[in-house]
Amino acid sequence: MANIQQVAQKAGVSVATVSRVLNHAASVSPKTRLKVENAIKDLNYEPSMLGRNLRNSESRLLLVLLPSISNPFYTEIINGIQNTAIANSYNILLCETDSNPQRENIYFNMIKNKLADGIISMDPTINMQKLNELAESYPVILCSEYEEGGCIPYVTIDSELAAYQAVKHLIKLGNDKIALINSDEKFLYARQRRSGYERALKEFALPIREEWVYHTKDLEFQNGVQAMRMLLEQEEKPTAIFAVSDTLAIGALKGINGSGLHVPNDLAIVGFDNISFSNMTNPTLTTVSQPMYKMGCTAANMLMMSIKGEQVESVVLDHDLIIRESTMG
Amino acid sequence: MANIQQVAQKAGVSVATVSRVLNHAASVSPKTRLKVENAIKDLNYEPSMLGRNLRNSESRLLLVLLPSISNPFYTEIINGIQNTAIANSYNILLCETDSNPQRENIYFNMIKNKLADGIISMDPTINMQKLNELAESYPVILCSEYEEGGCIPYVTIDSELAAYQAVKHLIKLGNDKIALINSDEKFLYARQRRSGYERALKEFALPIREEWVYHTKDLEFQNGVQAMRMLLEQEEKPTAIFAVSDTLAIGALKGINGSGLHVPNDLAIVGFDNISFSNMTNPTLTTVSQPMYKMGCTAANMLMMSIKGEQVESVVLDHDLIIRESTMG
Repeated sequence: MANIQQVAQKAGVSVATVSRVLNHAASVSPKTRLKVENAIKDLNYEPSMLGRNLRNSESRLLLVLLPSISNPFYTEIINGIQNTAIANSYNILLCETDSNPQRENIYFNMIKNKLADGIISMDPTINMQKLNELAESYPVILCSEYEEGGCIPYVTIDSELAAYQAVKHLIKLGNDKIALINSDEKFLYARQRRSGYERALKEFALPIREEWVYHTKDLEFQNGVQAMRMLLEQEEKPTAIFAVSDTLAIGALKGINGSGLHVPNDLAIVGFDNISFSNMTNPTLTTVSQPMYKMGCTAANMLMMSIKGEQVESVVLDHDLIIRESTMG
Repeated sequence: MANIQQVAQKAGVSVATVSRVLNHAASVSPKTRLKVENAIKDLNYEPSMLGRNLRNSESRLLLVLLPSISNPFYTEIINGIQNTAIANSYNILLCETDSNPQRENIYFNMIKNKLADGIISMDPTINMQKLNELAESYPVILCSEYEEGGCIPYVTIDSELAAYQAVKHLIKLGNDKIALINSDEKFLYARQRRSGYERALKEFALPIREEWVYHTKDLEFQNGVQAMRMLLEQEEKPTAIFAVSDTLAIGALKGINGSGLHVPNDLAIVGFDNISFSNMTNPTLTTVSQPMYKMGCTAANMLMMSIKGEQVESVVLDHDLIIRESTMG
């Protein structure tokens, strides 16, 4: 592949002039511009954007950290980040951390070495101490999961309120035995959703029973199936389920279908996220819709503001309860 | 953050000596090594892996190109690539091309600029001419979709045979009106799966009817719903559906459930891929299982061999027909 020196030589100009043509600088005469453009064409030269950006110490790359791409919740957020980034001449790199600190370091070092301009983290398992240190000198935004009272700007929804409304919907349908399928409460969103669940129960003077609160290790379908199996083994069985993610709710639905019980006649279910598959299940799933695409767009805009050195405020977006067949008895 | 110069100064040694300690070279005395290690600890110095690799002109990064992460088919392949890469001290970067040539260029330039060591492409929409040019000088592997008679090594399955077996399974159940929900036949896998579909019909002297072959624009659930709606509007309705991806099959299942018909009593369905959702639907989906995880591992191993300069042969992996409720009448 031809390099910029060869283009300059062929056009009979300096490397700086080629660079000015590539950067659309005004200070190049039309005649010189034509000579350079012809040389570029003749040599089939492709300017290395990354190379140029490295010299400008601007990579135009944004890193998006996520624990794993297997939860479709992240997919729509990424679409929002991506479309917004591209519209502003940025590209994104998806970085699966797999909750592995060594891999976090690689990505943090990309930022420190100016190989990328900033980070959007969606990883609830990230090392917050290290991320906070990084955020002191480099642009960082948290998306979805965040740190209460922390210094890094975030975009999220009100998980406590959303959970409260979901459980209240189940109570209004006449359910008084409502189970919670929660993930690990080391995560803020899990603590907040449990808190909303308890608030609704308390408001209607319903008992909070520990045997109806199940904690899963992961957010895979199979964890939901397993959780449901355990809940159906209780002496007193719940009549409704609130699961903190759609993947868990869909697993629970599968567990109920497999046991011969009927949704929603025997058990009602509400999920969380409104992933595209939640409308493909039979019955379709009532769920809390997070504005995932908008969340992605917002995170990208916040990060680009931060890269420009502007002040960035945290944002809490609205959510919706989408009522579908799994709670329509 | 401290840099290598500060570490050298504090330890009273040269930068080259610090570098030798970091690279575990044998030519450093235990006493010097200790001084350097103490300085590293005192200054909280983190060697920049990327920086070091750039100087060694080895990035230890592999690029994985895919059209979009919204199809869960890619998820398991990526897990295989990732685990294999990490076990060999490589990291991967996921690059969504979104079928956009400008974004392909960015990734190709990362390779040319030694910011990454090689590419695994899973993108059926990629510009093959440019990829072939790149592959003349740099390590490239194709995963899943490939080019017949092309020069780039690939790992894939026998799509024609898999489709033939899936359709034969439907015929053996007594179906003689079998529709095909296919994607765009500009893709090799789509042409191969259609060819397998036709081979099975011909073998059993069943007619191939154009009105029972539906082409979708994308592989989203919604495309399957739409395809099924069109097929159910036919005067003579099919009694079985073979869809070339599980996302399409799950959409079709939804379309059938919505029309009041029953799967498998009125219509049997077979999908393709064995994504994790396919076992969560009601009824569960009969499907062709691609060894996605193994495909990812194989692709990563092939790429690492290619990076080492070794000769790499293409691989065709085995598939399985997984029979579930959607074809058990």
